[in-house]
Amino acid sequence: MKRLGLLAAPLLMGQAPATSPPPSLANTSADEIVAAAPAAHWLAIDPDDIMVMDTAAGRMVVQLAPQFAPAHVAAIKALVRAGRFDDGRIVRVQDNYVVQWAAKPEDGKQVVSQPPDVRQQRVRPAPLPAEYERSAKGLTFTPSPFKDTYAQAGWVPGWQAARDAKAGTVWLAHCYGTVGVGRDMPPDTGDGAELYTVIGHGPRHLDRNIANVGRVLAGIEPHAALPRGTEELGFYKDEAQRPKIASVRLASQIASFPLWQMMDTASRSFAAVVQARANRTGFFVRPARAADLCTLKVPVREVPRGVR
Amino acid sequence: MKRLGLLAAPLLMGQAPATSPPPSLANTSADEIVAAAPAAHWLAIDPDDIMVMDTAAGRMVVQLAPQFAPAHVAAIKALVRAGRFDDGRIVRVQDNYVVQWAAKPEDGKQVVSQPPDVRQQRVRPAPLPAEYERSAKGLTFTPSPFKDTYAQAGWVPGWQAARDAKAGTVWLAHCYGTVGVGRDMPPDTGDGAELYTVIGHGPRHLDRNIANVGRVLAGIEPHAALPRGTEELGFYKDEAQRPKIASVRLASQIASFPLWQMMDTASRSFAAVVQARANRTGFFVRPARAADLCTLKVPVREVPRGVR
Repeated sequence: MKRLGLLAAPLLMGQAPATSPPPSLANTSADEIVAAAPAAHWLAIDPDDIMVMDTAAGRMVVQLAPQFAPAHVAAIKALVRAGRFDDGRIVRVQDNYVVQWAAKPEDGKQVVSQPPDVRQQRVRPAPLPAEYERSAKGLTFTPSPFKDTYAQAGWVPGWQAARDAKAGTVWLAHCYGTVGVGRDMPPDTGDGAELYTVIGHGPRHLDRNIANVGRVLAGIEPHAALPRGTEELGFYKDEAQRPKIASVRLASQIASFPLWQMMDTASRSFAAVVQARANRTGFFVRPARAADLCTLKVPVREVPRGVR
Repeated sequence: MKRLGLLAAPLLMGQAPATSPPPSLANTSADEIVAAAPAAHWLAIDPDDIMVMDTAAGRMVVQLAPQFAPAHVAAIKALVRAGRFDDGRIVRVQDNYVVQWAAKPEDGKQVVSQPPDVRQQRVRPAPLPAEYERSAKGLTFTPSPFKDTYAQAGWVPGWQAARDAKAGTVWLAHCYGTVGVGRDMPPDTGDGAELYTVIGHGPRHLDRNIANVGRVLAGIEPHAALPRGTEELGFYKDEAQRPKIASVRLASQIASFPLWQMMDTASRSFAAVVQARANRTGFFVRPARAADLCTLKVPVREVPRGVR
């Protein structure tokens, strides 16, 4: 109600009767639950698992998930520490699908400027194992109360996931903002030097076909708004079109970087968020009484250093 | 395979081993089925149901669905014919949600330039009935073979839809590219002068809560790439930020406009497309064996006038 009330003011070119937009995905009620959640319902995110990417479009903050793809995450962190993503490029933006970016190549081909001192820091990781799913052992899986087209949907602490209870496996789901690793045709060819994030309808058919390594915590918006590439699959045509990556650092390398938390998906607060999103009120004359996994995002928040 | 083969050439800043992106939503196999579909598996789209919108971002072609929202579609066509959308504005872009645009208001408030001759043509429609679902009578419903979180998913000829078999109702589903009508809190307050299209994960919770009137056939890309609005819910802050709409016409008003067709969703070709998308090969080591409604888009195509 409040959110819609706020809308009355900026409403739209003086029309009467004023037509308002559909409300945001995050309705006020879920927002209120998040705001009221006690500290015990939040989990700290390790600053060493946060990648801070400054590009020509803006800053994007990515949380890595070593519990799902330990070899990939270790390789990505090694690339970050070696400065390999500095002066990298966003190479592909495909509408309703992905934004994809790449570390600076070792041989420097197709790169406009390449200071040799940066070049010498480069590492060249070996191809990595196909970390597409993992054993469910040691992870708390909170099942979604709603039907899922693909598997059993749910959450492992702080993450949108799915599982095969019979096989005892669990994996990160491909939703808006999920970060994965580009690979070639053989499953073990991803090296972590090329990553993408989803900017469209959750492509869940990619689940268990590619290594998911994380998700965007903040700053996806200007990247999702980049011009779509004109070549096959949304690749940019040439170097002039590719937005530059100024630098990528781990949050643990940046002294002043804020702390981040994610809601504990096993908490009562999160269960209430799920119910609120499935049973929206106010604008909604007919609550859906369900919600699919990709709309049930896990709340995350930035907290000033010193709090908690 | 072919699609991925093509990728080898533009691949990505000279890296070795080259990492390729995940393949497109439309895999080659489904594309081949579409290309081979006989003429009898395609349905003509009435040029009077196509809205051609030229904006500062580009041309967007929208198909209207009078069979689902007859009063809204009639009101929108009246607005188009009266030139009410000419010199309108895109007023809102919310990340992972919607692009929303508005006809030029009758009183001209907040509009920079407003030629009086255009102004006098304006109509002011009355609020419209809440056309959120309709009787299933007279529509062929082809159920999806896969589970849906929200209802029974499927298609009515040429459209992504869902139904309540018990109640005998059917409605258009909110997916990427669906076009709906903005409204205020009371359900009957949409007048068709303000429309949106979805540019994020399909917000199916809006189904049966707002009048869907169509979908984008072409040209969503540059609109989905517009800068996100900085105000509450992604509204643009002021007139300077709002991209202009040069004109909106029906395809029936444009002599040279191409004809469009949509695949008959009751055809064998479409059933094969659904299966191909659920059982992807090549890049995919583990086909999902399912696909959710919003990923199962209905193929559409432009055909030169004179063909068929």
